[in-house]
Amino acid sequence: MREVAVVGVGMTEFGELWEKSLRDLIVESSLKAMDNAKVDAVDGIYVGAMSSGLFANQEHLASLTADYLGMVGVPATRCESACISGSLAFKTAFLDVASGYSDIVLVTGVEKMTDVSGDKAVAGLSTAADDEFESYNGITFPGLYAMIANAHMEKYGTTRRQLSLVAVKNHENALKNPLAQYRMKVTPEAVEGSVMVADPLHILDCSPITDGAASVIIAPVELAKEKFKDHRIVKVAGIGHATGTIALHSREDLTYLDVVAKAGERAYKMAAVTPKDIQFAEVHDCFTIAEICELEALGFCEKGEGGKMTEKGETKPDGRIPVNVSGGLKAKGHPVGATGVSQIIELVEHIRGEAGERQLKNANIGLAQNLGGSGGSSIVTILKGLGTGE
Amino acid sequence: MREVAVVGVGMTEFGELWEKSLRDLIVESSLKAMDNAKVDAVDGIYVGAMSSGLFANQEHLASLTADYLGMVGVPATRCESACISGSLAFKTAFLDVASGYSDIVLVTGVEKMTDVSGDKAVAGLSTAADDEFESYNGITFPGLYAMIANAHMEKYGTTRRQLSLVAVKNHENALKNPLAQYRMKVTPEAVEGSVMVADPLHILDCSPITDGAASVIIAPVELAKEKFKDHRIVKVAGIGHATGTIALHSREDLTYLDVVAKAGERAYKMAAVTPKDIQFAEVHDCFTIAEICELEALGFCEKGEGGKMTEKGETKPDGRIPVNVSGGLKAKGHPVGATGVSQIIELVEHIRGEAGERQLKNANIGLAQNLGGSGGSSIVTILKGLGTGE
Repeated sequence: MREVAVVGVGMTEFGELWEKSLRDLIVESSLKAMDNAKVDAVDGIYVGAMSSGLFANQEHLASLTADYLGMVGVPATRCESACISGSLAFKTAFLDVASGYSDIVLVTGVEKMTDVSGDKAVAGLSTAADDEFESYNGITFPGLYAMIANAHMEKYGTTRRQLSLVAVKNHENALKNPLAQYRMKVTPEAVEGSVMVADPLHILDCSPITDGAASVIIAPVELAKEKFKDHRIVKVAGIGHATGTIALHSREDLTYLDVVAKAGERAYKMAAVTPKDIQFAEVHDCFTIAEICELEALGFCEKGEGGKMTEKGETKPDGRIPVNVSGGLKAKGHPVGATGVSQIIELVEHIRGEAGERQLKNANIGLAQNLGGSGGSSIVTILKGLGTGE
Repeated sequence: MREVAVVGVGMTEFGELWEKSLRDLIVESSLKAMDNAKVDAVDGIYVGAMSSGLFANQEHLASLTADYLGMVGVPATRCESACISGSLAFKTAFLDVASGYSDIVLVTGVEKMTDVSGDKAVAGLSTAADDEFESYNGITFPGLYAMIANAHMEKYGTTRRQLSLVAVKNHENALKNPLAQYRMKVTPEAVEGSVMVADPLHILDCSPITDGAASVIIAPVELAKEKFKDHRIVKVAGIGHATGTIALHSREDLTYLDVVAKAGERAYKMAAVTPKDIQFAEVHDCFTIAEICELEALGFCEKGEGGKMTEKGETKPDGRIPVNVSGGLKAKGHPVGATGVSQIIELVEHIRGEAGERQLKNANIGLAQNLGGSGGSSIVTILKGLGTGE
């Protein structure tokens, strides 16, 4: 397998973008990434989107992308695995380039979610759960994650305040992210006083409904060294991909995201690193409890210690391992198919030293973790900057 | 890139399978392919489905597949590109194995279409067209292909009878396919006397709404030689993938499927063959006119000669190049995501010499061509049997 690098990044603002259509978002972010890489053509296109059929009445999205980018003819593939659709498109594109089939490939994650009513958006998202046993019986994702939160609180003594502190940190981080949907400071009291969605989760524990797109350009490392010299080269050091049971009730332990642990182990092994080597991370905080469970499953702390680790400030930008410096899904927004790609962009910008106000001091090796449904799938991607003995 | 072989095949019956759910179909066909290959585990899973969200209220289909096959943990990816979703899953899986990332991979194409009403099925299918410019204005696929047919008849003198002869041949072929949806003989008069859908296309010019799944197991050729000795080894000699404009009105010549020509050229180049080397083919006859256009775009005849080639009987099982011996989409049925994989199965069975009553005499090299929408995407796959000097 050839080594692969990310050589271009670009994304739209995340938010309620009523003046932009699905195809507008795709084109805007794709062209930004192509401009960033300074390429005007690609060999392949991968699109990550969860449910453009239900949210925007449009499947066949990869062809639409090639067409509206003025690149009719170029092979284009859409990948879907609920909320990891973006990182799945990235992984699939990675294999395309690693195999030697393609050289320069565009990956665009997108979701246009606010063109449908709120109940239709929730119904669309529910197709990531088990339709016959979960959605059919009326449960939606806040309810599923509330069960995870209750189990975690009971088993490990995780507190309501610790959940709040995830939201507080990620909203604080988003203040420095000009593309984030909710650039506003929140207090623990504000989280706990906001509308209850599914006990113990309040609305400020939940990531929002968002429109947006995020794109990267990838190429073989050897080609990157030769042709993409404007930015530091960022190598894909490891990608781990795993599935979990699609239904929450099939799991032995609701509190442990085994799917994240498996994807993490595979990524660490491929990158030949351990959790201690990771300098910063973007994790899938679709709900505050998810970030806590993921810190544990990724090996950043012991099982049951995610809440305490958060309370100690270890995941703040100046902490032991900064997590979701971008604002995370919670405050940056969660346009489902775009999220995984936007996580990778955040890593690349820090590793390049181009993250502006958010720039971390030690950022040579970062990890992005994306989660599908209540834990039906996960991808963990580890990126490393070249030029530090690599 | 490593060479890749198909080492196992299996599919469900195609039809209105009201007693089988989406997951039942996936499991049945996947286990058949695993039994055929004699494997009880795989390294990766690829699922092709066009719109399980709109047809069955279920996205996150790849995780569902891993889960219901008892293979939780295995990386699983869903691919979508309208009606080529099945062959796209196959191509993407091919790159996974070719890259060296995975060894033994399952590919399952599926669509469960009859759980929704007829108008919802048509609306779901319409998401393969350009939503903003085509579907929104009320046109559906029979209308789009009717425009192609009218243009072809006007430009080349293709006759109504020639269209009928495509349906007559494919229904005749399906009589020998125990898994086909419509195993019935039709006459040209029956086609022309059937209900008009969109002039000049009658209902017997159209492929049906179908439930079904089709699966293959792939592995590196080297591993196949060592471990999969029960059947003749069938190598993936070439895969070509291309996009076209998603909207029909964007094309300069309605009669020419440029997307098929491009995908074909790429596949021929990779396999180092020409159209004359192809001994038999499965092509995407979603409407009778489509088969005629595809014969031309694949180089089996000159532009405009597809109707005449059909009339001369050259595409019959005993003709110069047998086309759609399986019955094609027309008579075998068209469960959208399953179609591309079922085409590959048909090639494998003939090349292995295991096609039963349908077995062709000369079947060492075959071609499968899958088409998305009205020509927004296409994949052409060429398979070759080993053991003939390979």
